[in-house]
Amino acid sequence: MSTSVTLLAGGVGGARLAHGFARALPDGGAPGAHGGLTCVVNVGDDTERHGLHVSPDLDTVMYTLAGLNDEERGWGLTDESYAVLDQLGRLGEDTWFTLGDKDLATHVVRTARLRAGEPLSAVTAALTRSLGVDARLLPVTDDAVRTRITTPDGELEFQEYFVRRQHADAVLDLDFAGIDAARPGPGVLDAITGGDLLVVAPSNPFLSVEPVLGVPGVREALRAGGPRRVAVSPIVGGRALKGPAAQVLESLGHDVSALGVARLYTGLVDVMAIDAADEALAAPIADLGFEVLVTDTVMGGPEGRERLARELLELAGS
Amino acid sequence: MSTSVTLLAGGVGGARLAHGFARALPDGGAPGAHGGLTCVVNVGDDTERHGLHVSPDLDTVMYTLAGLNDEERGWGLTDESYAVLDQLGRLGEDTWFTLGDKDLATHVVRTARLRAGEPLSAVTAALTRSLGVDARLLPVTDDAVRTRITTPDGELEFQEYFVRRQHADAVLDLDFAGIDAARPGPGVLDAITGGDLLVVAPSNPFLSVEPVLGVPGVREALRAGGPRRVAVSPIVGGRALKGPAAQVLESLGHDVSALGVARLYTGLVDVMAIDAADEALAAPIADLGFEVLVTDTVMGGPEGRERLARELLELAGS
Repeated sequence: MSTSVTLLAGGVGGARLAHGFARALPDGGAPGAHGGLTCVVNVGDDTERHGLHVSPDLDTVMYTLAGLNDEERGWGLTDESYAVLDQLGRLGEDTWFTLGDKDLATHVVRTARLRAGEPLSAVTAALTRSLGVDARLLPVTDDAVRTRITTPDGELEFQEYFVRRQHADAVLDLDFAGIDAARPGPGVLDAITGGDLLVVAPSNPFLSVEPVLGVPGVREALRAGGPRRVAVSPIVGGRALKGPAAQVLESLGHDVSALGVARLYTGLVDVMAIDAADEALAAPIADLGFEVLVTDTVMGGPEGRERLARELLELAGS
Repeated sequence: MSTSVTLLAGGVGGARLAHGFARALPDGGAPGAHGGLTCVVNVGDDTERHGLHVSPDLDTVMYTLAGLNDEERGWGLTDESYAVLDQLGRLGEDTWFTLGDKDLATHVVRTARLRAGEPLSAVTAALTRSLGVDARLLPVTDDAVRTRITTPDGELEFQEYFVRRQHADAVLDLDFAGIDAARPGPGVLDAITGGDLLVVAPSNPFLSVEPVLGVPGVREALRAGGPRRVAVSPIVGGRALKGPAAQVLESLGHDVSALGVARLYTGLVDVMAIDAADEALAAPIADLGFEVLVTDTVMGGPEGRERLARELLELAGS
């Protein structure tokens, strides 16, 4: 199969589907004459902890593609230890943001290289190479974009909302600080317009996908088309598979359903992939102008991811 | 006993004697009406590893006073693990500078606070407080001083010489980059002139003590006197107890003996403390104008350190 796939991805949902494509494509999705996989990843969740630059979504995708992700938790590395974090606590640091020792090495290297003037895209390329990842990972931008959440208790930094307060607050509004001045990272627009298949991962539409689309030029590139474009609904049977997508859709006044998600992606993708559990929504989604792929979108293990990826790859040829 | 002691210290020798004073003085050497212990510490060995600011001498003194130093190695913390360092290696980083996980937490916190604009002295005060150290640790300066070693193979950064090449190179010359513009840190000059007893630790005269004395104003303050001043020879029986002091003295053309050390401290201290093994040198050292204390200067365990500290404390009253 010779297909160039570009995946717009947040964290866990994006990572799992990326893993599926890496398994389905030749050479683990390494870019080449036969195509390959490019993941364009959200950086709105990036944060600074203990002076270290942490890129949670990039790392989740990177670790998953490297086969090092802790599958049970969904984030971080397998076989982790927490010696540094324990000691940081003894030194008076806040430790609610869990950082494993091996994970911390990533942040130490990233921070050092960023401080030395390398852009995040170059640092990401070096890290993925070191970890043996074949697919290409692109931060959507090398500039700082920071998601902030307005809750009834005021505005929160993303990780404060997501990790410390365990996304329990109602989301009244979202702001992506810096996004208006952000420029798409090297290769991002080409990857969106130039491939055979463009996939919007089953990631949170507001927290993960919107800060990707909102980087000036990205939404326009997606809208312009070129490749076949498909979005996979992160809502199945009215619930999010992981994370606060359902609450966020609801508190922002959207239908908590694959139909609600489809409305958000109108004009951006050609195909909506929805789960068999939501088959009843195929007709109303089709009425919005989408082609609808009804399949099993719940990616259990690696095989389930690969199966979904192969089904999506068939869209590229159709 | 009500005595204010100031110790000019490098790494291991300074740390051990500091520990002795902390045991000998009330409240672990905490500053107060009854006196206390102030350590003025070399920062010429400071380095940046993986983007983190490492202060080896400050940390050796701090960890030793906290009872956390790895006594066998002489540096680093007890019960260390190396998960981060292993992973840094996997990510392509040089790992010849051994950093334990707990130790790394110190460097992460220090680096974050320095980057946030805090001076090294404030960061050091916070770290020592967190680790329960009662004595006062002062970096000799908040400014950057970096020891560089000229060897037959060219100029080396200090840790390159000391750790990577295991201080095997002949030292042809020394340079303390930045020292001419460095200002003594807050409290340093007062501690040197204002106490009851000023002790030059049995640290390497060139690598550890000289970058302390060379900060403009420090040597002058020491020379001006006020407290009783004593230096403990780091050379016993013609050999250094630890590290390259013997080689450095020799290659720079000095006597590798307590007498050679005494010559370097002429005019700076009143008393030379030498080991019983060097009793024969008491007379020639006295001829240089020193009072000579002949004792057991080889600090075995904590009791040996405390015993030496108590002997030195007696000088303050004499």
